[in-house]
Amino acid sequence: MPIKIAVIGCGYWGPNLIRNLQQIDGVQATFVCDIEQTKLENIKKAYPHIRVTKDYLEIIKNPEIDAVCIATPLATHFEITKAALLNNKDVLVEKPFTLSSKEARELINLTEEKKRILMVDHTFLFTGAVNKIKELIDRGELGKLYYFDSERVNLGLLRSDTNVIWDLATHDLSIIDYLFDQKPITVSAVCSSHICGKEEMAHITLKHQEGFISHIHVSWLSPVKLRKILVGGDKKMILYNDIEPVEKIKIYDRGIDLDPNQITSFTPLYRGGDIIIPKIDQTEALNKVVEHFVECIKERKKPLIDGEAGLRVVKILEAIDKSILEKGREIVII
Amino acid sequence: MPIKIAVIGCGYWGPNLIRNLQQIDGVQATFVCDIEQTKLENIKKAYPHIRVTKDYLEIIKNPEIDAVCIATPLATHFEITKAALLNNKDVLVEKPFTLSSKEARELINLTEEKKRILMVDHTFLFTGAVNKIKELIDRGELGKLYYFDSERVNLGLLRSDTNVIWDLATHDLSIIDYLFDQKPITVSAVCSSHICGKEEMAHITLKHQEGFISHIHVSWLSPVKLRKILVGGDKKMILYNDIEPVEKIKIYDRGIDLDPNQITSFTPLYRGGDIIIPKIDQTEALNKVVEHFVECIKERKKPLIDGEAGLRVVKILEAIDKSILEKGREIVII
Amino acid sequence: MPIKIAVIGCGYWGPNLIRNLQQIDGVQATFVCDIEQTKLENIKKAYPHIRVTKDYLEIIKNPEIDAVCIATPLATHFEITKAALLNNKDVLVEKPFTLSSKEARELINLTEEKKRILMVDHTFLFTGAVNKIKELIDRGELGKLYYFDSERVNLGLLRSDTNVIWDLATHDLSIIDYLFDQKPITVSAVCSSHICGKEEMAHITLKHQEGFISHIHVSWLSPVKLRKILVGGDKKMILYNDIEPVEKIKIYDRGIDLDPNQITSFTPLYRGGDIIIPKIDQTEALNKVVEHFVECIKERKKPLIDGEAGLRVVKILEAIDKSILEKGREIVII
Amino acid sequence: MPIKIAVIGCGYWGPNLIRNLQQIDGVQATFVCDIEQTKLENIKKAYPHIRVTKDYLEIIKNPEIDAVCIATPLATHFEITKAALLNNKDVLVEKPFTLSSKEARELINLTEEKKRILMVDHTFLFTGAVNKIKELIDRGELGKLYYFDSERVNLGLLRSDTNVIWDLATHDLSIIDYLFDQKPITVSAVCSSHICGKEEMAHITLKHQEGFISHIHVSWLSPVKLRKILVGGDKKMILYNDIEPVEKIKIYDRGIDLDPNQITSFTPLYRGGDIIIPKIDQTEALNKVVEHFVECIKERKKPLIDGEAGLRVVKILEAIDKSILEKGREIVII
Repeated sequence: MPIKIAVIGCGYWGPNLIRNLQQIDGVQATFVCDIEQTKLENIKKAYPHIRVTKDYLEIIKNPEIDAVCIATPLATHFEITKAALLNNKDVLVEKPFTLSSKEARELINLTEEKKRILMVDHTFLFTGAVNKIKELIDRGELGKLYYFDSERVNLGLLRSDTNVIWDLATHDLSIIDYLFDQKPITVSAVCSSHICGKEEMAHITLKHQEGFISHIHVSWLSPVKLRKILVGGDKKMILYNDIEPVEKIKIYDRGIDLDPNQITSFTPLYRGGDIIIPKIDQTEALNKVVEHFVECIKERKKPLIDGEAGLRVVKILEAIDKSILEKGREIVII
Repeated sequence: MPIKIAVIGCGYWGPNLIRNLQQIDGVQATFVCDIEQTKLENIKKAYPHIRVTKDYLEIIKNPEIDAVCIATPLATHFEITKAALLNNKDVLVEKPFTLSSKEARELINLTEEKKRILMVDHTFLFTGAVNKIKELIDRGELGKLYYFDSERVNLGLLRSDTNVIWDLATHDLSIIDYLFDQKPITVSAVCSSHICGKEEMAHITLKHQEGFISHIHVSWLSPVKLRKILVGGDKKMILYNDIEPVEKIKIYDRGIDLDPNQITSFTPLYRGGDIIIPKIDQTEALNKVVEHFVECIKERKKPLIDGEAGLRVVKILEAIDKSILEKGREIVII
Repeated sequence: MPIKIAVIGCGYWGPNLIRNLQQIDGVQATFVCDIEQTKLENIKKAYPHIRVTKDYLEIIKNPEIDAVCIATPLATHFEITKAALLNNKDVLVEKPFTLSSKEARELINLTEEKKRILMVDHTFLFTGAVNKIKELIDRGELGKLYYFDSERVNLGLLRSDTNVIWDLATHDLSIIDYLFDQKPITVSAVCSSHICGKEEMAHITLKHQEGFISHIHVSWLSPVKLRKILVGGDKKMILYNDIEPVEKIKIYDRGIDLDPNQITSFTPLYRGGDIIIPKIDQTEALNKVVEHFVECIKERKKPLIDGEAGLRVVKILEAIDKSILEKGREIVII
Repeated sequence: MPIKIAVIGCGYWGPNLIRNLQQIDGVQATFVCDIEQTKLENIKKAYPHIRVTKDYLEIIKNPEIDAVCIATPLATHFEITKAALLNNKDVLVEKPFTLSSKEARELINLTEEKKRILMVDHTFLFTGAVNKIKELIDRGELGKLYYFDSERVNLGLLRSDTNVIWDLATHDLSIIDYLFDQKPITVSAVCSSHICGKEEMAHITLKHQEGFISHIHVSWLSPVKLRKILVGGDKKMILYNDIEPVEKIKIYDRGIDLDPNQITSFTPLYRGGDIIIPKIDQTEALNKVVEHFVECIKERKKPLIDGEAGLRVVKILEAIDKSILEKGREIVII
């Protein structure tokens, strides 16, 4: 019997979920919900065999549905996820997980209670690029870590339900959480708002241990789209340019040491070896997200990115909000 | 009679000064000072007609020298500039101007007293690119300003006499000072040091009026060299990529407005017109610096970049130092 | 009543046709044919409502089908298109149109006889980029034309049914046919084959009138994917880089004139003005192809890219084959 | 006693020769000749210690001069080089060597007769990039060679004394001569002229053994400057982009094989491994040219790039001229 999965929310991400669900063996995308009629009509046009509804409860209370993917606005994640869990559905919920760590904690507890699968869709963690970086870090190839520096800017898309930090920086926070054992200890943020009353650009600084610093620059007000992450260590450094269609990652055998034979004078030694552009897995990340979700459903196992991972990111987002309120003060992440 | 100019300090920048001085009509580069013998020998090899010395006082006390260019380590700027002014020399001094605003103020006063020409070599302000941006801002083409965002990173060169902020961010501070009428009001900075005990990477945030924010990212620990400035306004936005050999500036006719006819709903309108890459003057900036200095000497007029401009930058550098000491606290620039 | 369209051939391009047909109002994609079972199963999985078959005659003889899109290997275009026309179907056929000009001519005649719509899918002619270039040429902005220079290279995909010229250069030949009133007069080609016994790389030179030359470099053996066209005239020049996701076209206000005031000496004057990156329509070209095909079906009008356009390209391909056989001799295009 | 070297010809390249000669130990740049007064004045301004003259014979007959660097227009290379050899000077002459193979042969013979050093300045052969490529080819890393493909285009600089082929393609012909044991056997060329009556753009095809083809595209009429060479073999392929300031060479572990286990069906296997950007020597090539010339003078040894190397390139240039006259016919290189 195929696993029957429904998708709730059919804005930007929902149709991608449906398309990927369609491609997995043993899965049936059966039901889609959105509050906008035209969105449902588009689905109906492309997939006449899929049922549609405006009422998500019709899906959640349907005993034939095994699992739901929730791609609705952030403010509704808690309510819909909770209802789904209470009705014994397994859940894949979009990032960010919830509006608050309190909500996240309640959903984690409910998941355990109901013995359900709960996965948060931190899509980037399923890209070939991020996993190649993780592999290099885990093997110690970068040496002692210096910094993580992300630039994630473009023009729009302004959203009425969230700000640029919860929208874009969430990606980087989830990547930082995934890559580094040294979790960030404090955060500070500066931002500004010019058009819609919500933060449209921000600079976020996270301090980890031993001088390791992460910085995230997000903006909806950049004329160009940039997706660039630098990760530096004392042995190697990585440039991850996600705009590049194929050659996304460059590994630099570069660094600086002070000449140990010159203890009285200041003699930096610059190391500049070859650069390697490793082959990376080009599979669409969402395809892997959905496959992993289905595998967890079948095998009743904990997803790699579970509620706890979602909660850790929400906690940092809350600390950022606090720092902004206090004009950029450094906030300890609890 | 040609103007006789000497160069004190022959490390990285000194030879460039000499080469450019050589090319100006009515100028004679006559004398060079450095404390390292090999540097003097190199000069002697390339320009056998130029006199060399290890003692800068030999230059400064020489009545035949009209003016000096000072390209020595920062810590010596004050002493040498002061000695030169006291000996009635006109002075072009490298950036940053001085170690402290107190020193800068004393030199400004001495300049006036001695009726001398004092110019600070903020070289970038003489590039075709920066002047094109200034022209666009002055004509109001960018509209209300949103942000200035600079990334100036590369591997090295570590210096024992200064940190990455005084070394690299000085360029951006001078550009900000030059471009914008809205001077920065506060500054905060986060930095880290891994190798040499001095700050090797930093994120600096400057707040101007009305939500206009400048951000500067400088680093000596990046595997790649990046020189990128974004300036955004509500009408147009500029990308200035100084790594590009020719097409350095892109002007984007892009922006976002909220639909005024949709006052109850949130309807952003994205504007995305043509992009223009304007022709810019490609003359070597230092050539123009030196020409302007010579012109000021001849006409006894105040340089565009005088001691006051140098002082304004030093004041922000001092505020950054203070912010770092206080763990990133926002400091008012006095 | 919706127009009922079938797709014959479900390799690389067929699924794209289906996806785009699904999105057009008043059209029903009802039937798909392929000889491979797995391809049909994939369609069935994504679109359970679409009928599938391995026998294209089942489609062509079905009186309910109004039109067919033929995306089968080149060698079968003639047979299937002919059968479709004889059964009163309108036809959209993939490029290149046919194996020979004789076949193309027969299909053109049959189309007229049966009063059918026949369109050749020269997809590039429906891109925003190519149409922007056409607009500039038609307005005379480039002045007298100097050259068209295309580089279309990548690794693979080797095909057993055709060579790199019929596969890739067809795109450029269709673009040249579309852009320029001055049709090519002669063609010569050099090529080589290393792996599969068919031409895998080629350099093709087309001579138009008055020294205007087109050159096409195609290869399946390049380590990098390049898609670059330069078009030069005496007033302006265009760089069209199709790898760029957004900024595909740059218009250069550049040129060279000999100084008319210096008739005795050789004094070239170089003109180097601004560069403009125009906003171009980003709609998927195939979407417009399919829409235009449907519009022609509805209004019974001749498609922009009809059999004659397909034939003109096939004639040049035949001349290229002849030039290759004769070791690169210049062949007149009849 | 230092070696005394004079430079004849002070247009674009001459000053670079002088600057590099100045930097070599044991060498004295003593004398410079040009027919234009302003050029001599510029030299005098930068290097007051260097003697200047308008009469090259004054240099060539001066018994104190050991060697001359000839950077005059091509048409004068033969006459001046001959005079220099007859007066027992060692000679470094700019590329292309001479106007004809007859001239080249005469100079080679005279060099041997007079026991002189004669070096042709094929500057590119002293770049780190070209030598890295040579190293890879010599080690067999590319496997069986498929193609060499060069694009060397920009706007201008039109020259009255030569065409774009003798000006720009000479670089590629010298690189091909240096890199490959398989010398080109035939050449064909297509070109056009729009402004100055001399060829301003050309496509040149060289056939080597076993299907190995070189193609060179040169133009003075391109709006953008491109300097790109692709070298492909069955094991590895190289992209050499000389516009890149640092990362000039990319080595692709890419290729295609037909599946040997599938002899009845056509099954290409695509190989796409890591890409390596090797560290290359960044020393200015002309510095190495001059150093090598001086070393040959001192040690009385044959230069790497001697008259024979210059002659081989001139022979191909002559064959290209012939092909152009015969409308692109394939000419055997003798």
